[in-house]
Amino acid sequence: MTTDSLFIDACFGKPTPRTPIWLMRQAGRYMAEYRAIRANVDFWTLCKTPELCCEVTLQPIDAFGLDAAIIFSDLLVTLPPSGFDVEFVKNKGPVVHQPINSAADVDRLRPVDATDALAYVGEAVRVTAAALPENVPLIGFAGAPFTLASYLIEGGSSKQFMKTKAFLHQEPEAARRLFDHLAQVTIDLLKLQMDNGARAVQIFDSWAGCLDPEDYAVWGLAYTKRIVDAVRRPGVPVIVFPKGTGNYLNLVAETGADVVGVDWTLSLAQAREKVGPGVTLQGNLDPGRLLAPWSQLAPAIDRVLDAAGDGTGHVFNLGHGIYQYTPVDNVKRLVEYVQNTSGLRRSRGQ
Amino acid sequence: MTTDSLFIDACFGKPTPRTPIWLMRQAGRYMAEYRAIRANVDFWTLCKTPELCCEVTLQPIDAFGLDAAIIFSDLLVTLPPSGFDVEFVKNKGPVVHQPINSAADVDRLRPVDATDALAYVGEAVRVTAAALPENVPLIGFAGAPFTLASYLIEGGSSKQFMKTKAFLHQEPEAARRLFDHLAQVTIDLLKLQMDNGARAVQIFDSWAGCLDPEDYAVWGLAYTKRIVDAVRRPGVPVIVFPKGTGNYLNLVAETGADVVGVDWTLSLAQAREKVGPGVTLQGNLDPGRLLAPWSQLAPAIDRVLDAAGDGTGHVFNLGHGIYQYTPVDNVKRLVEYVQNTSGLRRSRGQ
Repeated sequence: MTTDSLFIDACFGKPTPRTPIWLMRQAGRYMAEYRAIRANVDFWTLCKTPELCCEVTLQPIDAFGLDAAIIFSDLLVTLPPSGFDVEFVKNKGPVVHQPINSAADVDRLRPVDATDALAYVGEAVRVTAAALPENVPLIGFAGAPFTLASYLIEGGSSKQFMKTKAFLHQEPEAARRLFDHLAQVTIDLLKLQMDNGARAVQIFDSWAGCLDPEDYAVWGLAYTKRIVDAVRRPGVPVIVFPKGTGNYLNLVAETGADVVGVDWTLSLAQAREKVGPGVTLQGNLDPGRLLAPWSQLAPAIDRVLDAAGDGTGHVFNLGHGIYQYTPVDNVKRLVEYVQNTSGLRRSRGQ
Repeated sequence: MTTDSLFIDACFGKPTPRTPIWLMRQAGRYMAEYRAIRANVDFWTLCKTPELCCEVTLQPIDAFGLDAAIIFSDLLVTLPPSGFDVEFVKNKGPVVHQPINSAADVDRLRPVDATDALAYVGEAVRVTAAALPENVPLIGFAGAPFTLASYLIEGGSSKQFMKTKAFLHQEPEAARRLFDHLAQVTIDLLKLQMDNGARAVQIFDSWAGCLDPEDYAVWGLAYTKRIVDAVRRPGVPVIVFPKGTGNYLNLVAETGADVVGVDWTLSLAQAREKVGPGVTLQGNLDPGRLLAPWSQLAPAIDRVLDAAGDGTGHVFNLGHGIYQYTPVDNVKRLVEYVQNTSGLRRSRGQ
């Protein structure tokens, strides 16, 4: 019943000889190879050029021997075909120039035929899956409705999500129409990626942690569960990662995810208590720790491995995307260390 | 052994006939009276003019009958006398134009004689304490070293605190010198406020939640405990509020604080389990809920009161500062509702 992939097996809680590892945003600016590509193309062009997506997706696999790849793309690809253009502004991040300010603005949403409008994502996945070593599965991904809605309503990234919360509380009907749309395009995008060779999918709800547990149940859990149910296929694990939700990780597990992503504000042992057995945990090293010298980084890695019990049902990852200024050598040593020591721990029965 | 103040009594866990309430950032832009003052003076001028600080501090007391006042000031007042100027830039927040980039930059710190350099804060506290009704205590406040250091290192506010974490991990000795300085000026500022009539003090560690538990123990807990120990005086409660630390609130309680502030990502019942008995909890309504219509706001207030058990050892507050676009009428109704229903609950023995 096991596969050729330690990562897939671990996602389903099967025993593996060692802990698999991949890193969120592992294809990115901390790598010179990535910066060399980006020197010639802007971010959107990169996202929309399947051969380049394939190239940057493979860069960290070639360099570090990670156990899974994640397709190079962006959470916000579903927004332009929905009728809301997104500009990536240097040193600022994504900007939606005509955001949703009122219930009427939700009428500006256009239905999306993902196989057409997002064909470039499907093609990137197809090309990349074919180029990867057989035992390195490709992960597809998309944004959860709350996080996507926050960009549409705030007009970009935010710290307090004041406008988003005001909209949810003051215009709940329009918000439901918005979330219905966003859930559907996320479902369609994830299916498109699976159709083209993604062997796992991750739903990012990057800003869900700004919600209290009651709001998360309504605007996070319910829509994410709808997505998980809709995309479920045998042998394809679904990972749900809503950052900042450590205090109500029990609700996150209720989405039905095979794998729950965990940030670094709680230990994996604490996370396990909250989600119970039968769910794999993915995480949870603070990406900031990768800025430390190895002498301090190694014990932090050990703490994560220690907190994962016997290691079954654990996919090693960071608690958020890797930082831009991360020394490449630390990444290399991290991957080697996790792969080696987790194997030694298991052979010793630790 | 009780005092004339429900707030002070509740901070020390004494039974009170009802739950006291105040709101972080209760003097602020959501009030027309505040905006009228700010139309004529910039932020720094307001902070440095004791009579105006007094006026805006009293505005929400007069308007809503809150149970405590907090002196109008800013977390960053200790930075300019330390040698690092701070500019408040519209729509951006505070900017430190010459931030700390290296260990050598820590040498730019200058010792601060708070009684001289921050005399204007002391004077604002003195004037305001004298102007308040006797049963409305004035709270003084200051920033915890981690949060202050993050502004000095990032050059302003941040989402990821990448530079701050890099500095802590790469230059731990210089970081310790920086934190020693910041702890000392925070101690001196809090003492100055107590000397001038502050009857409680709050230590804000607004960005501590970006730290993993191990880093919080080193850079949050240890320095905050030093401050709590140094400023402790009989009858003057110390409140510690490190936002985003719900998962390791047990460590926050180890600071020795009389009161622990709680954000909205966990219930007060969960928070109580983590901190144990003998500590008062302050919080924890999501400020975003104040943007909802009353029909949705009232049940959210009830949930907070429900989770506070019999109400002893609870100071009602938000889980973070009140938002700029909060309807004043919701604030008025919130305060009345908490004061009335908490009293009714107790007289009924709920």
